[in-house]
Amino acid sequence: MEEHISSRKNPLLQQVKKLLTSRSERRKTGLFVGDGTKLLQEAVEYMPGCLQTVILAEGVQVRVPDGIRVVRVPEDVMASISPMEAPQGALFLGKIPEQTGFRPKPGMLILDGIQDPGNIGTILRTADAMDVSVVLLDGCADPWSWKVVRSSMGAVFRAPVIQATWDEVLSACREAGIPIGVTALSDRAVDIRSADLSAMALVIGSEGRGVRQGVLDSADRELIIPMNPHCESLNAAIAAAIVMWEIKRN
Amino acid sequence: MEEHISSRKNPLLQQVKKLLTSRSERRKTGLFVGDGTKLLQEAVEYMPGCLQTVILAEGVQVRVPDGIRVVRVPEDVMASISPMEAPQGALFLGKIPEQTGFRPKPGMLILDGIQDPGNIGTILRTADAMDVSVVLLDGCADPWSWKVVRSSMGAVFRAPVIQATWDEVLSACREAGIPIGVTALSDRAVDIRSADLSAMALVIGSEGRGVRQGVLDSADRELIIPMNPHCESLNAAIAAAIVMWEIKRN
Repeated sequence: MEEHISSRKNPLLQQVKKLLTSRSERRKTGLFVGDGTKLLQEAVEYMPGCLQTVILAEGVQVRVPDGIRVVRVPEDVMASISPMEAPQGALFLGKIPEQTGFRPKPGMLILDGIQDPGNIGTILRTADAMDVSVVLLDGCADPWSWKVVRSSMGAVFRAPVIQATWDEVLSACREAGIPIGVTALSDRAVDIRSADLSAMALVIGSEGRGVRQGVLDSADRELIIPMNPHCESLNAAIAAAIVMWEIKRN
Repeated sequence: MEEHISSRKNPLLQQVKKLLTSRSERRKTGLFVGDGTKLLQEAVEYMPGCLQTVILAEGVQVRVPDGIRVVRVPEDVMASISPMEAPQGALFLGKIPEQTGFRPKPGMLILDGIQDPGNIGTILRTADAMDVSVVLLDGCADPWSWKVVRSSMGAVFRAPVIQATWDEVLSACREAGIPIGVTALSDRAVDIRSADLSAMALVIGSEGRGVRQGVLDSADRELIIPMNPHCESLNAAIAAAIVMWEIKRN
């Protein structure tokens, strides 16, 4: 049984708008918003238990499991709530899964201060494809913002999303005897091809600022992706992909 | 001597708007638009001869070489012409450099039907960092659209931007005896780690559609980036980065 909503002032649609723009609203309610038909299919396939409400534009046909609230809205209402330039007509609300506890393991990737949601989403997508665990330190974009969910292409549904503080990561790695490698543009940095990345926990920072000083100070190894001297940096998602590829290469 | 413009109907500002949105306008005039202070610095450093006009918001200080037209506009006028959400207050018009002729060489990357400007820009940026030549086939995003220029972080100023048709590329590679490798998700595809990529010309397609059939039919080798079976694809810029890394790795 589908409901029909045509008023933009309906509380559900107002809540969607808040969840789209406010991290604290997502924290408070434990809900996130996804946007797109393909993304909805991924959510149905990989985390059906978390799916809460599906909002569809008139005429859009998608398979939604029984027991999930389905709401139809006119196209212009969908256009007014969807954050996408060309809405596909399928928005959904889901419960943010319980936080998976942090457990250190060799060959994991740690992200420090990467604020661009598109980069975070692309990194999570690549990590899922390459079977690499990723940890987001505080200061990264919220993995449950719609932009991250979208650019992850559903990887946030398929693989656990791990968030931790640097103190947690550092002490757990020290205890487990896992050396910490940090990508940095310093003179001490060694070419990533000459290090065994699969044995380390690897930290990548933002392209502008790199990793924070406290992280750099704790590094057992500084690593560099060799590049043309006239280039200052790679895009953070590109650097992460090359590091993940090297972790898994041999 | 700076000019001051405050009317949004000024012909220069109208031209900027056209150049931002219309590929045919860029072709007709041979001009492109860049947006951002850092990008302007890159243009000044790497292609000063192409810089034509610089438009600055009141109060913005940047170094512009002598002989280049500098126009000051009020902040609200800058906000109305800049395509960026948070304009930095520096827009510029430049001449699109003469097209560099296509010359086949081993270890070059060929892009087929990649329409996302952010991906094209990121690929050009990565290629510049890794010193790989890139060819854009027809059907790719215009490398001189502001979004590509911006996401290339100035790589379009530092390295030649090469565009060619598939017929040109194919016949030149055949003549030069350079085998064509194509990334594809087929059963015949071999792991990129087991092929000598530096000896081939490598074609990458869009994530949705892959390479077109005509290209696939001409491939001497089909190649695959190994990944988790539940993942359908990598982002095109990520796939390109891994291929470029492998071209240069040994």
